Amino acid sequence: MNRNTLDFIQSCIATIPDYPKPGIIFRDVTSLVEHPQGFHQTIELLKEHYQSMSFDKVVGTEARGFIFGAPLAYALQLGFIPVRKPGKLPRSVLEQSYQLEYGEDCLQMHCDAIKPGDKVLVVDDLLATGGTVEATIKMIREAGGIVEHAAFVISLPDLGGEERLTAMGVKVLKLVDFPGH
Amino acid sequence: MNRNTLDFIQSCIATIPDYPKPGIIFRDVTSLVEHPQGFHQTIELLKEHYQSMSFDKVVGTEARGFIFGAPLAYALQLGFIPVRKPGKLPRSVLEQSYQLEYGEDCLQMHCDAIKPGDKVLVVDDLLATGGTVEATIKMIREAGGIVEHAAFVISLPDLGGEERLTAMGVKVLKLVDFPGH
Repeated sequence: MNRNTLDFIQSCIATIPDYPKPGIIFRDVTSLVEHPQGFHQTIELLKEHYQSMSFDKVVGTEARGFIFGAPLAYALQLGFIPVRKPGKLPRSVLEQSYQLEYGEDCLQMHCDAIKPGDKVLVVDDLLATGGTVEATIKMIREAGGIVEHAAFVISLPDLGGEERLTAMGVKVLKLVDFPGH
Repeated sequence: MNRNTLDFIQSCIATIPDYPKPGIIFRDVTSLVEHPQGFHQTIELLKEHYQSMSFDKVVGTEARGFIFGAPLAYALQLGFIPVRKPGKLPRSVLEQSYQLEYGEDCLQMHCDAIKPGDKVLVVDDLLATGGTVEATIKMIREAGGIVEHAAFVISLPDLGGEERLTAMGVKVLKLVDFPGH
């Protein structure tokens, strides 16, 4: 990938100190999405990286995963499978809970969205501890889907998400690293 | 627009009776999004319709509006502005409340996302009573943006949303009509 393009993408990501609470440095992907060239080049890079591989579906997690996953699915001419918070999907769902800092949350996906043997590309905006993406991959695999690749615009490499996905046999692509968290 | 393409798009939209409660016929846009050709042709139609007009930004409302708005912004090489539920956006926000069947809800948008004079295309999955899209348009106009066009994949024309937007000076494009609600 072109270093200048990646630097440009990184420069479009705003940094918000002390959000959502004191001591946290928030990397704001909406400032990238709101930037016409920044957003377009992000999707183009992902498209170029994955277009020679053979996928059947793109999966993205509510809500920021939709902002990158849906355009990438369109660009690759694939179906887009939304993974959502409980109670938002109208048909029969698979469900997977995952740990939060305090307590537990849950994600759902339509049972019929993934067919056994489907090759699935997972997309989200940011990889931190990897809890939500792990839950997403578990659901896809439970449905018989094959997940070997996951793409993120931002990675916070000190939070362990990359190692977690590697241990699951998933190759991680991240466009921008913010070490030091 | 090509009638066969529109019929094909309509055929990809699942109908779920009695969801989310008895007596409601739910039109399920996720079955369209999950269909590679269905999803791709939907975004292509919207792109073809709007590409000769001059817009500065695309705005989509959380969460299903992201699934159509973000790909259309990418296809038109425009920035994508997410409108979200309260507490999800990290920078200073504008806010607009709107009526629900019982009670009230609220939407937010970054203050700096729209510049005065920006021509804005509003995109959502479904137009029913038009409450959320009206709130979205009010926020954009409060920021100085110009809204003359709004696009929806599905319209439920008996619920009054189209008349509401027309009264606001907004031209409505809908790909698929489901009368009889």
